[in-house]
Amino acid sequence: MRKVNIGIIGFGNVGSGAAKILLARKSFLAQKIGVEINIKKVCDKDITSKRNVSLSKDILTRDPGQILNDPQIDIVAELMGGINPAKEYILEALKKGKNVVTANKALLAECAQQLFREAADRGRNIYFEASVGAGIPIIKSLREGLVANKFSSIFGIVNGTCNYILSQMSSNNCSFAQALSEAKEKGFAESNPTLDIEGLDTAHKLILLTYLTFGKLVTLKDVFIEGISNISLADVNYAKELGYQIKLLAIAKKEVDELEVRVHPTFLPDKHLLSSVDGVFNAIYVSSDLAGDLMFYGPGAGQLSAASAVVSDIVDLTQDIKAGLFRPTLNSVEDNLVKKLRKIDEFESRYYIRFSALDKPGVLAKISGILAKFGISIASVTQKERQRSQIVPIVMLTHEAKEKNLHEALKMIDHLADIKEKSVAIRIEV
Amino acid sequence: MRKVNIGIIGFGNVGSGAAKILLARKSFLAQKIGVEINIKKVCDKDITSKRNVSLSKDILTRDPGQILNDPQIDIVAELMGGINPAKEYILEALKKGKNVVTANKALLAECAQQLFREAADRGRNIYFEASVGAGIPIIKSLREGLVANKFSSIFGIVNGTCNYILSQMSSNNCSFAQALSEAKEKGFAESNPTLDIEGLDTAHKLILLTYLTFGKLVTLKDVFIEGISNISLADVNYAKELGYQIKLLAIAKKEVDELEVRVHPTFLPDKHLLSSVDGVFNAIYVSSDLAGDLMFYGPGAGQLSAASAVVSDIVDLTQDIKAGLFRPTLNSVEDNLVKKLRKIDEFESRYYIRFSALDKPGVLAKISGILAKFGISIASVTQKERQRSQIVPIVMLTHEAKEKNLHEALKMIDHLADIKEKSVAIRIEV
Repeated sequence: MRKVNIGIIGFGNVGSGAAKILLARKSFLAQKIGVEINIKKVCDKDITSKRNVSLSKDILTRDPGQILNDPQIDIVAELMGGINPAKEYILEALKKGKNVVTANKALLAECAQQLFREAADRGRNIYFEASVGAGIPIIKSLREGLVANKFSSIFGIVNGTCNYILSQMSSNNCSFAQALSEAKEKGFAESNPTLDIEGLDTAHKLILLTYLTFGKLVTLKDVFIEGISNISLADVNYAKELGYQIKLLAIAKKEVDELEVRVHPTFLPDKHLLSSVDGVFNAIYVSSDLAGDLMFYGPGAGQLSAASAVVSDIVDLTQDIKAGLFRPTLNSVEDNLVKKLRKIDEFESRYYIRFSALDKPGVLAKISGILAKFGISIASVTQKERQRSQIVPIVMLTHEAKEKNLHEALKMIDHLADIKEKSVAIRIEV
Repeated sequence: MRKVNIGIIGFGNVGSGAAKILLARKSFLAQKIGVEINIKKVCDKDITSKRNVSLSKDILTRDPGQILNDPQIDIVAELMGGINPAKEYILEALKKGKNVVTANKALLAECAQQLFREAADRGRNIYFEASVGAGIPIIKSLREGLVANKFSSIFGIVNGTCNYILSQMSSNNCSFAQALSEAKEKGFAESNPTLDIEGLDTAHKLILLTYLTFGKLVTLKDVFIEGISNISLADVNYAKELGYQIKLLAIAKKEVDELEVRVHPTFLPDKHLLSSVDGVFNAIYVSSDLAGDLMFYGPGAGQLSAASAVVSDIVDLTQDIKAGLFRPTLNSVEDNLVKKLRKIDEFESRYYIRFSALDKPGVLAKISGILAKFGISIASVTQKERQRSQIVPIVMLTHEAKEKNLHEALKMIDHLADIKEKSVAIRIEV
């Protein structure tokens, strides 16, 4: 049986998971493809720590050159993460005529243009199924399964840490800090969780999803990013009362001829399927013009889940290599209806707003007067805990309003003597 | 630019949808693949009726031979439906060296073995993404995206007609007959809806899903099939009260070394994601050992949705043809843990049971005595509408029980003088 040789760079969580699957499922996969996938080398700085897979010593190396310079290695799986030297390794692998599999969303979000161009120039492919939604085959579905479709929007819950924290706050009535500390204990959040909770990881994935749906490779500075660290239990509970859930969403949305690309906590109605996605699960909800509204759901993290996606990429490439063929991935085609990216100020949305105001006559009139001045129309108002001369929350839902107008109105309102804390505004979708 | 020629047999709903997309997205697809997909011939008995796509007259033909015998046609899309002559056309196309795309689940469910063997012998592929879940890329996801996984179960809502009827009964508090007649009015049910409501269409799709997840090509007689025509509004409402939804599920489930393959109305807990799948939507929920629990959701029917899947198959084949290559679909590998198919009598399940009994002392004792005799343990009992000497419903949920035992117990209970109607039993899952 023909053999295809793999080199894995990065023997951490995903790398050792991929190695484990490739060994345990060797004959299962060989029966499916008609090719033996052989792990020729695995490179890591640390080749002595115990992993949950045991490889013979001559496979392990500290020298990436043993993979990059080995002409017998057909596919390089870059699973080390980080920007440098992962990027240099991928470029070198492509130069040497190897195909590449990576799970590195941060690198792709920053350098996709350069990497994809190098791959095309060399007649090689970069596959990256594991970079969004772990084992959920979302990349393949968008690129191949929905190849004939144009998209109007994509909403993604693509960060398990954030979704776990928000789900916990909602179901256990606990604060952000408590939920975060629990997430850390359970291994669902890193000791430094900034990348996750401030929305950067979600933005990285959104860049890839936007590329696959709208054919546009936006940069990080094109993405409006707001994390979940300012979400208070009060807002989570008001959301529930009003029939919503708060989710951190990756959103790419076409509005006539403009595209909005943004990451922020979002009020989603309970009845929307994404509202039922709890805990560390991920889901990507896409609206396509032929296949309609679709959702892809599954665990968004986990060693074997991500490794499952890496192995599916390796199998795809192996099938081509077996046939002695370069079968390029489908080209991305820019949606020609999209003329420009919409700037944050121009976003339009409905909003949930919570004011902390002194409970005295005339406050509501002042607030609603300012909102009216900026053309912001109120859909509903709730003022629950009436306590003369105390600070009470006033909760409003607005109709569609321009982001810019909302911010100016809030700035003015927050200057009122009767407003005692910074007002909170959260966008409502769907 | 290289050109690949397509012949379409069947110019009905899906066929004309596929033609429409291939024309409207011709340059969009050409940019993605680097190949022009050209509709060379479209065959149908009726080539005069107006469709929502206009083709030049020399493309339309009544003679399938003009497609099957044309050496320039690379791909045949069989979209006419039915067993004969669709089967003969597909076999002939394969013999003539053409690749085949079909949406014909009934044909595949009956003759997949023969058709797949012919394709393999001829070095050609049969793609069938549109046969389950219309535009949801479930076939590709199971076969390619989850290639490394073994599965423990698959639960599918794969018939939009049934799901629409059950959703309407639940949300509008209407009878099965009312919901069915509404479904017909809206075009969600055929004038003769038997194939849908009696579960046969779901069984056809389940055969394909079982093949893709467990590598086993079961036959229709291996599948236990029960439709939804006996579901009463009373049961739908009791389900809601108890925190469940009734859904018609396609189930393939591994129990130790046996496989259960069945279609029947099922009590699903409200919190299960499948319970939120309403109306004509479909969803397939799979449990895999590496990628975890995944769900794929979308419209289960619709001209453009199904045609979207057909076109994705055509694009897959076009990429290979372009490369001058036969890239066989991944082989299906039988799950070697599955030793046999479990017979219906051996199924184990929890049950919802509704008895119609005279409200008089001792009835409950008799019923529970018989259940106990057959080893069926009761989890909860509800008897609501107490009306001395009237017929009242007694609703029970059981713990796990063997199907065979349950049936014998119900037979005995239904013979009691105090039981006034045939008792209803519905399986509970998850």
